[in-house]
Amino acid sequence: MTQTQLPATAGESLAGPPGPRAHLTSPVTQAVLRVQNQITAAAREYLSGDGFVEMLPPIIGPVTDPGARGAKQVDIDFYGHRYKLMTSAILYKQASLLAFNRIFYIAPNVRLEPLETSSTARHLAEFHQIDVEVAHASRDDILLVAQGLVSHIIRRVTGTMAAELAFLGRDPRAFDALLAGPFGRMTHHEAAESLHGLGHDQDPHAEIDWYAERLLSAQHERPFFVTDYPKGSRGFYDRENPDRPGTLMNFDLIAPEGYGELCSGSEREFEYRRIMARIRETGENPAKYGWYLDLVREGIKSSSGFGIGLERLTRYIAGLDATWQANAYPKLPGVVSP
Amino acid sequence: MTQTQLPATAGESLAGPPGPRAHLTSPVTQAVLRVQNQITAAAREYLSGDGFVEMLPPIIGPVTDPGARGAKQVDIDFYGHRYKLMTSAILYKQASLLAFNRIFYIAPNVRLEPLETSSTARHLAEFHQIDVEVAHASRDDILLVAQGLVSHIIRRVTGTMAAELAFLGRDPRAFDALLAGPFGRMTHHEAAESLHGLGHDQDPHAEIDWYAERLLSAQHERPFFVTDYPKGSRGFYDRENPDRPGTLMNFDLIAPEGYGELCSGSEREFEYRRIMARIRETGENPAKYGWYLDLVREGIKSSSGFGIGLERLTRYIAGLDATWQANAYPKLPGVVSP
Repeated sequence: MTQTQLPATAGESLAGPPGPRAHLTSPVTQAVLRVQNQITAAAREYLSGDGFVEMLPPIIGPVTDPGARGAKQVDIDFYGHRYKLMTSAILYKQASLLAFNRIFYIAPNVRLEPLETSSTARHLAEFHQIDVEVAHASRDDILLVAQGLVSHIIRRVTGTMAAELAFLGRDPRAFDALLAGPFGRMTHHEAAESLHGLGHDQDPHAEIDWYAERLLSAQHERPFFVTDYPKGSRGFYDRENPDRPGTLMNFDLIAPEGYGELCSGSEREFEYRRIMARIRETGENPAKYGWYLDLVREGIKSSSGFGIGLERLTRYIAGLDATWQANAYPKLPGVVSP
Repeated sequence: MTQTQLPATAGESLAGPPGPRAHLTSPVTQAVLRVQNQITAAAREYLSGDGFVEMLPPIIGPVTDPGARGAKQVDIDFYGHRYKLMTSAILYKQASLLAFNRIFYIAPNVRLEPLETSSTARHLAEFHQIDVEVAHASRDDILLVAQGLVSHIIRRVTGTMAAELAFLGRDPRAFDALLAGPFGRMTHHEAAESLHGLGHDQDPHAEIDWYAERLLSAQHERPFFVTDYPKGSRGFYDRENPDRPGTLMNFDLIAPEGYGELCSGSEREFEYRRIMARIRETGENPAKYGWYLDLVREGIKSSSGFGIGLERLTRYIAGLDATWQANAYPKLPGVVSP
């Protein structure tokens, strides 16, 4: 696949969102939002049928996920106390397993991404995640949940939304390989080697950047997992492999055809001593994690989980040029809009 | 029904939320959250089956609903621009009808309620609404949607959650009258007269306060609508009756047994000239409603809609002493908690 067949990105003449009237009255937007409605319905159907309880995550709290790559958090004043908008639901997902062993959220998040990401076609300052967490699950267990969930969603959407997909120009045969068998799987180390083979100088000890991820994605015709990212590329809650220090027991799920990352997940750190050490390694003051660390000290369950970017999944399924097309009121980094 | 049979409120020895571990590991909380999960599933089932498209509302934006009684809005800094957390989804509900004629959200809201409301047993600073809006619908049309939706939810929850309700001590016969026929209906004027009859000095031109609402609620055994509130008691978007200036074409839905308000709704203002006049009457500067007024000026659809407080509906159905019991991470006004 050549570069020009990839979904559009900056420099490939992709315009930003039009105003709300043009966006909402567009038959394209309407078809996309109907597809997205089926995606969330299919996710609820699959997870509820598998014993998960859907919960409603908070959108504000004293502390939030520090792990977002380069994004800033939003401060608010809650009766004189400094609170945050949620950048992800991870702290609440771990806590919620005190109530149920299998939970999910469809969670809104706000991340003030760097201004330069407004032209990646991938980043929104406000977006949603299908957030799943399972007590006592290993990474291999949770990979199967993610694979089963994404496969079910695509099976339902291609089954019920044929007219919308046709209107959007998305050939449902794009999903034949996905639906025919298990997703691919490689380690971060193998991904780095593969990128070297493509002429890209990927540091085997660093995050895979957007460009490289897109290169790798374009080599595949079905989604694939990249596992075992180096420590430092993700938040303190992704469990470090006790047998391979410096390597996380985590994964990303990458869509094929150049669409890039759909989902990040991991086995979790859950022991107080290890979490304290991991927070300190990032240079953060553990004191800001008050309520969370109080819970962890008294004991939380081991778990694995993941978050699927809902707008990114919608983009992949609907075959869209940009992630903002999958949001009714898209907020690009730095751009004032409804 | 005597005063002491009412659900507990401040002064009736209702404790606030315990810490997150005690709350989440409590079998009561777990039963309540399972009931709530069925409530949202039933709402989606009813509305999707009736041609509604579920959309995901923004949680931040340049402006939000000014109508919340006495509650403060939360400011945030969005790349140097002053944004708000949503206090309600009303502006987006009207806009979203440009895409579809029947929409709903299950929307998170944040309202910094006055500190004294932390003891009403009714108020949370963060809560959810089942938010419904229908293009070209009259108030009578939307009353039927609200009645059908609440009846369906209660029919499904009593049918599927018998064990949870029994555990919570909620006798399902409490809903026999509700399920047997249409909800009651009275005007605000009639409600004021009824309150006079109960020895309460209700101003016929003012909002019905929490205490009076509870008094009225305790007189009924099925939910009832109170219609035609005086202008000034609600936001500018509730349509003023052209034939009876000063009276709104709106309603509240009040639960019986002392549980009080579940839902507010209205036929909406949709004409630019009238909306501008209504905003000016409240003393606000229309300039802050930039994107919304731009849409209205170019034309939006007439509509009616409502928002059901999800935690309050859960409280009523589960028979709880306080609304915070219906939230996994309850935030009382002024109280720091996860």
